[in-house]
Amino acid sequence: MASLGVDLGGTKIMAVLVDDGEVVAKAKKSTPKVGGPSDVLDAIASVVAKADPDGRADSIGVGVPGPVRPGSGVLPLAANLPGWDHAVDVAAGLSERCAGRRVVVDNDVNVGTLAEVRFGAGAGVDNVLGVFMGTGIGAGLVLDGTLRQGPRGLSGELGHTYVAFRDFDEAQIGRGEVEDYAGRRMMESRARARYEGGEPTALVDLVGDGRMKSSTWEKALAADDQVAREIIDDAAEVLATALASAIALVDIELVVLGGGMAERLGEPFRAHLEARLEARSFAGASAPVRAATLGDIGGALGAALLLERLA
Amino acid sequence: MASLGVDLGGTKIMAVLVDDGEVVAKAKKSTPKVGGPSDVLDAIASVVAKADPDGRADSIGVGVPGPVRPGSGVLPLAANLPGWDHAVDVAAGLSERCAGRRVVVDNDVNVGTLAEVRFGAGAGVDNVLGVFMGTGIGAGLVLDGTLRQGPRGLSGELGHTYVAFRDFDEAQIGRGEVEDYAGRRMMESRARARYEGGEPTALVDLVGDGRMKSSTWEKALAADDQVAREIIDDAAEVLATALASAIALVDIELVVLGGGMAERLGEPFRAHLEARLEARSFAGASAPVRAATLGDIGGALGAALLLERLA
Repeated sequence: MASLGVDLGGTKIMAVLVDDGEVVAKAKKSTPKVGGPSDVLDAIASVVAKADPDGRADSIGVGVPGPVRPGSGVLPLAANLPGWDHAVDVAAGLSERCAGRRVVVDNDVNVGTLAEVRFGAGAGVDNVLGVFMGTGIGAGLVLDGTLRQGPRGLSGELGHTYVAFRDFDEAQIGRGEVEDYAGRRMMESRARARYEGGEPTALVDLVGDGRMKSSTWEKALAADDQVAREIIDDAAEVLATALASAIALVDIELVVLGGGMAERLGEPFRAHLEARLEARSFAGASAPVRAATLGDIGGALGAALLLERLA
Repeated sequence: MASLGVDLGGTKIMAVLVDDGEVVAKAKKSTPKVGGPSDVLDAIASVVAKADPDGRADSIGVGVPGPVRPGSGVLPLAANLPGWDHAVDVAAGLSERCAGRRVVVDNDVNVGTLAEVRFGAGAGVDNVLGVFMGTGIGAGLVLDGTLRQGPRGLSGELGHTYVAFRDFDEAQIGRGEVEDYAGRRMMESRARARYEGGEPTALVDLVGDGRMKSSTWEKALAADDQVAREIIDDAAEVLATALASAIALVDIELVVLGGGMAERLGEPFRAHLEARLEARSFAGASAPVRAATLGDIGGALGAALLLERLA
């Protein structure tokens, strides 16, 4: 039986058609920048039609950028999708556009983690935390071989776990959460604050007023930039801290590290993170950190895997 | 079918005989203060014989003060048991002393949480974190109605999760872990350090060089002691932070708060903790905090419940 998986991202929509565990077709297009949820749903439907023109898959899995209550198919809010400021039933809206086929929806990093556990860096391991570093920090949990969703679909929000209980501001400008130190958007804020405080940095020299991308950080590190080095070392320390906490709380055997930022920072960052995690871990019960291997196809592949549970 | 549960604590050993979900007999005795593991196992066997003289239970569940790898029956180390400085097979040792009956072993706070979910404050809730405040901080997780053990039996080590990533000392004197702020032993260290630094406190007036007990903290609060108040407020803030992180990571619907310290601090502490958790929670996804209702029988009752999985 073929199944179709879609990864709905803020930048692009990707779809894969999977048959017998093999990707037999792929398609993608840019995510609409303007309009609203119905434009996004139209775009998903067109990518689905491109990847599976003959309708071989009888149901569709979708990974979306936000928490999804299990079984609901609803994405409540999505800051990086146009006009998505209210809850939208993705399952119903997409099914309507795809000949009434069944649609299952889950969080994008949850399904990305599921894919890594089945086909990627986590293959053969039953208790895995997948961490994805990008604009923010996303994560998914596989426990005893099963994707943990949680009753409200909140599971895996590692970016919103705390590493600094005194750095808490009720106004939510830096609440001491992981994302406040290890998410690229907040890392940029920190770099700009230091620059404005009189510390020169290649990060600002490289992009001026433009957005700092993962490649910007990579270049600044290559140029031995002190500000970039310190902010990235803090990000590693914060992630190590949060991962050690996650291991202590749920007992994880393996961390899979992915996302654009992790890819750019590469092996030195992975190795440093693993060493810091080892130092932080309770009673030596650490976990290895492996680089994700599926790249940007992981989300769509994992979405296709959601359908396994229906079989 | 009757089942027998034992709670092996640093102070006392308790056993309950459970038949059809009802406690039909209880027994207890003090934990040996000297000797070694075989003396402790002898003491457990004598409590078992007292609670179930006719051998009605055909298997025995034991909650022990340390992590247990699932299925192993082995308690590696236990700081508060005499001579327990190496791994001991509790299941085999106790079975030998109890006519070859089958023995199942798990962590004490894991089974305490299980008991609260079946018969206590968590009844009817499927995703529960049980937190027990005493000398240290123990916790257990029930996810989707099942006790989470983890592949190494480490699950639920909330006391070893981090709330302060910069307060990290490789020498392990305060690593920024929850227990460093919210465990009674470390709270006492903080109070004594402040006293020695010139801040008078009822805590030291009450006990002199003796150990500060939960009742000492209760009395100091009643006397409006500033040092006690600040240390306890910090403990609440730290716990709220760690609980908010736990909710974000695994999506918990309810926190059950137990242990001697929580009992003494009572309703004001519970209500304050719940409010701080609400403030800390990601996207308003908080969880109520309920006081544990089973008291010191919870551990033994939960140990009896371990046997359900064998039925």
